Parts: sequence; structure tokens; C-alpha cells
Amino acid sequence: MNCVFVTGAAGFIGSSLCDRLLKSGIKVVGWDNFSTGQTEFVVKAKEEPSFELKRGDNLDLGLLASAMKGCDTVFHLAANADVRFGLEHPSKDLQQNTIATFNVLEAMRANGIRKIAFASTGSVYGEAQVIPTPEDAPFPIQTSLYAASKVAGEALIQAYCEGFGFEGYIFRFVSILGERYTHGHVFDFYKQLMDDPARLRVLGDGTQKKSYLYVQDCLSALLHVIKAETAKAAPHGCEVYNLGINEYCMVTDSISWICARLGVSPKLEFVGGRQGWVGDNPFIFLDTAKIRATGWQPELTIRQAVERTVDWLRENEWVFQRRAR
Amino acid sequence: MNCVFVTGAAGFIGSSLCDRLLKSGIKVVGWDNFSTGQTEFVVKAKEEPSFELKRGDNLDLGLLASAMKGCDTVFHLAANADVRFGLEHPSKDLQQNTIATFNVLEAMRANGIRKIAFASTGSVYGEAQVIPTPEDAPFPIQTSLYAASKVAGEALIQAYCEGFGFEGYIFRFVSILGERYTHGHVFDFYKQLMDDPARLRVLGDGTQKKSYLYVQDCLSALLHVIKAETAKAAPHGCEVYNLGINEYCMVTDSISWICARLGVSPKLEFVGGRQGWVGDNPFIFLDTAKIRATGWQPELTIRQAVERTVDWLRENEWVFQRRAR
Repeated sequence: MNCVFVTGAAGFIGSSLCDRLLKSGIKVVGWDNFSTGQTEFVVKAKEEPSFELKRGDNLDLGLLASAMKGCDTVFHLAANADVRFGLEHPSKDLQQNTIATFNVLEAMRANGIRKIAFASTGSVYGEAQVIPTPEDAPFPIQTSLYAASKVAGEALIQAYCEGFGFEGYIFRFVSILGERYTHGHVFDFYKQLMDDPARLRVLGDGTQKKSYLYVQDCLSALLHVIKAETAKAAPHGCEVYNLGINEYCMVTDSISWICARLGVSPKLEFVGGRQGWVGDNPFIFLDTAKIRATGWQPELTIRQAVERTVDWLRENEWVFQRRAR
Repeated sequence: MNCVFVTGAAGFIGSSLCDRLLKSGIKVVGWDNFSTGQTEFVVKAKEEPSFELKRGDNLDLGLLASAMKGCDTVFHLAANADVRFGLEHPSKDLQQNTIATFNVLEAMRANGIRKIAFASTGSVYGEAQVIPTPEDAPFPIQTSLYAASKVAGEALIQAYCEGFGFEGYIFRFVSILGERYTHGHVFDFYKQLMDDPARLRVLGDGTQKKSYLYVQDCLSALLHVIKAETAKAAPHGCEVYNLGINEYCMVTDSISWICARLGVSPKLEFVGGRQGWVGDNPFIFLDTAKIRATGWQPELTIRQAVERTVDWLRENEWVFQRRAR
């Protein structure tokens, strides 16, 4: 791994990955269309001579293929992460997740690059009947366009591994928290509390159970597995790993940690029923035995990850101006 | 079910479905881009006043949506069925299967149509570890671009069922045989034997196990389940059914039946190893308990289906001129 191509390089996880890779002396080509990426997130990386930032969209296969030239590994993290609003623009997930992944694979093929790590999601398990959910859980029914588009991306990568000798690492993420986090419940709650610390509106009934992983723990897992090259010995040249933590919390737990950290005591207003939104998985809790067996383990608890996120948001309130919905 | 829209209406299964629907008094709008469809297959249907044939491609969403107007149910059978040659043109499966399915769903949404039956494939199970393979087999690794594109189509339909209240029927077909069959091993073997009845070249070692269903049995299953409206009571509004037969054969068995029917005794030449082609599933044998529990059962054995196919090919040798590869 000498030169790594990172899609979504200006995003939350992507920019953090670039920093980690650069720190360990690896050359990085960052690629982002800046639809949600932030130039501020790559300021630090751009100071490094071994970092190159290229602006472009995954739907532009020609530009993508030429940008990738000279790299030997691809971390494909770019995605439409607007999970909750899939039904408002159904083609977005198809384009930015499924077709984008196809283009990444084709650009790799054009450049003779075969190693790919892919950020998938634990929501591909739909409403899992087996919890914690292992990688070989029963063939699921998809319940969101986002998860459907990620399943499609996974399937494409697997077919390229089998058909073109690619080496694939698919990671099914739980929600990730930490520095540079710019969407999801901690972000939404923080924003509401900035506006009015006396009340907090919560989608669903607050009992939704969630599992969160700290971003640096997530990156450690990715880098650990890629370094171990586990897919080389895997059937079909592809490994699928759940990526999460062995604990979960309820939304109300997270709210109490956020409020304690901020020193506020809002009145909670619960809106809606069992689910936060149509297609929201009421409980994503992944069995992470497989990735732990490779020797990786997370260092932060969910509470610590929530607190670091709150601390970072407090120091970076500018992000709320950027992501107006 | 008063007016049915059939994609792939001039194809092997699609045209047979049109005939069946018309026979039971249902109005049919047939849609085909004639990339592999045959005008001869819809000659009979076109004699019916309740049949309308429209030429168009699923990638043309505008035309597709206007063609669908007035229908209440969609049978989405159109697909790139060039399973073996996926690696030669990787974008074809993405476009004609995944994006096409998305367009069919969007065209339905534009017209307020919610009921869809989809022809998926047993090859979505990859190299299944559980045989016979049930619908809730372990989350598989995809081994072909074709299967990957069908998994993507399934996932999209499921997400539309959950998100937009669609009523989805996904059928994972084994290989289908019978009248109007224009691709696959019986077709290939017949063609070879026409050219030279003294020798037959067989991909793989001939021990590949396969399960085949007769086309009219396949259609009976589709119509039976749609009529029973099972998906209305299903979680997420979507049902997935394996569609096959409780027996299988080896390629060599099928060869012996074909040769017996034709009265030839060719020398068999086996080419290649365990698999017929990269991504070929060495053994697809589906557990069909779920669809049988609805009351459906097939009437023909695999041998009878092979023989009917041979008989039809003998009476319709023109199809070999049409499908030159």
C-alpha cells in the first residue's frame, strides 16, 4: 500500500482516513465532489506534500479513472449519506452509491488496481431477526433505498473479485461518531439545543437502540484488516466484516450523555412511533466476532464517542452553518 | 388484475406470460426493446384485441412511464440474460437489470401502480452452502455480475415496498425450459448437434448439477401467487419465493435425454474444470417449500421439460439463425 485513492476524501470519515494514512507515510490521492465534503477537513492534509486533492464526481468515469492513475489501493467511502431522505429523491442513492461504486470499480480496472475497501452499512440487514447480527445472517429484505444501494455496491464488488481477481474488503458500519461528524442524531440534537436548550424534539419514542463506533476505532479496523490482507485467502477474494462495538445504547441514553456534557436539561418531546423515519432500522447491533478475531478491538465506549463528538461540535460550530437543510 | 404491463414481452418467458394472461381475459400491454425478443413470439398475442405491443427500452424512463399508463400490475421480466458474458461488458447488467428495474419502479410510481412481480434468479445465492437453498439462506457473496444486478433489483423493489407501499413478488428462478427457449445449455447443445451430430463440446466436466423448471409451470406459479396476493400480509409488503422443482439432474443426464430425443450418439468432449464459466454456480438447487405451501406445484419433470424444449427447437430451427453469437 504505497499510494491510496480515497473517495469522499473531504468527508467525515474520508478526511480522517487521509490524515491517518499520511501520518503513516503513505501517499494519498483524495477525491471528492464536495457535495457534503468540507474544505476545512482537508486543510491539514493539504499541508502534506504526499497528499493530492482532486475534485470530481464518481459519475464522471473518465475523470475518475484518470485521477486514480498511479494508485494501488482504493478506499471507497464516498456516498449519499442522506439516509433519511431517500424517499424524496429515489435516484440519488442509485446514482451516488450504486452507479458510483460501479464507476469506481471500472476506473480501478482501467488502471490495473485491484484492492478495494468499501464502506457499507449495518442497515443492509434490514430488520434483522438475529441480534447481534453476524455477517452470515439470513438473506435480508431491504427496508431503505440507502441500504438497497449499498447492497448493490457490495454485490458489484464481490462480482469484480470473482470475475476480475479484485481483492475486496467490505465493511458494514454501524453509525460512526467523533471529530468531523456532520450528520446524524448527535449533530441534530446539538443543533436543536444550540437554538433552544430548554427543549429537544426526538423522532420516534427514544427507545430505538443504536450502536456507535468512534471514528478512529473505525479507521484502525480498516487499516488493520487491509494490512493483514485477509481477502487474499478468502473464497472469491472478498471478505465482509461487520464493524461495530459490543455495546449499544438507547437514543435516550445518548441524549442524557449529550445533555450532561453540555450542562443542559431540556424537556424531551417525542414525535412519532416505533421508528424514527420510514426505513429506519429500530435496532442495528452487529456481531463483531469476525473482525475481532483478526486482532482489532475498539478503544472508546459509545459514551466516550458521544462525548468526543459533542466536544468537537462545540469547538466547530461553523459546521452547522454549512449544512443547512 | 385488469390490465397487466409485461416487460420483456417478446422474450421466452414474457411472451408465454402474455399468452397466458390474454387467455384468461386480462388486458395486456407488452413492452420490449427487441434486443433479444422475437417478433414471432408475439404474433399470436397480437391477434388479440386486448393486447397492445409497445417497443421501447427500460432506460428510457419517459417513454416507459407513458407506456405503462392505465395498467394496474407489472410483471418485470426484461433483463440482460447474457449471463455468461457479463465480464465482457460489465455495464450491461448494471444498465439493463439494475437501472432498468429502478426505472420500472419509478414509472410505476408515476402512474400510481404498486403491484410488481419480478423475475430474479437462484444464482443470487452464489455458491450456496445450504442445499437445497431456502429463501432465508445465509447472506450470500455474489459471484457474477448478473446475479449482482438481480440482487440490486430485488433490493430496490423491497425498498419501494417499504417506502412507497408497493406490493412486491420476487421470484428467484432456476433455469427455465420449454417452448420459445432461446438460450442456455439445451439451445447450445441442440445447435452443436445440428452442425455435427457426432460430437458435443461440453463446458465444465459435465457433473454440474442443475435444476430446471418448465415454463408453463413457472407461469402457473407466478399467476397463482399474484392471485393469492400473499405480499399484502407480508412484512414490508414484499414476498420472496424460490421457484424451482424438487429434483435436479447433471448436465450429462440432460445430454442423454437430448440425444435420446434426437436419436443421436455424439462423442462428448469436456472442456474446462469444475465450472462452466467464471461465476457459474456449480449447483443451484432451491428449497421450494415456501411456494409449494401456497398450493402451487409443477406438473412436468426436468426430463419432460428438456424433451418439450428439444421438440420445440426441432419445429423452430429459425431461432438459431436469429441468435447468432
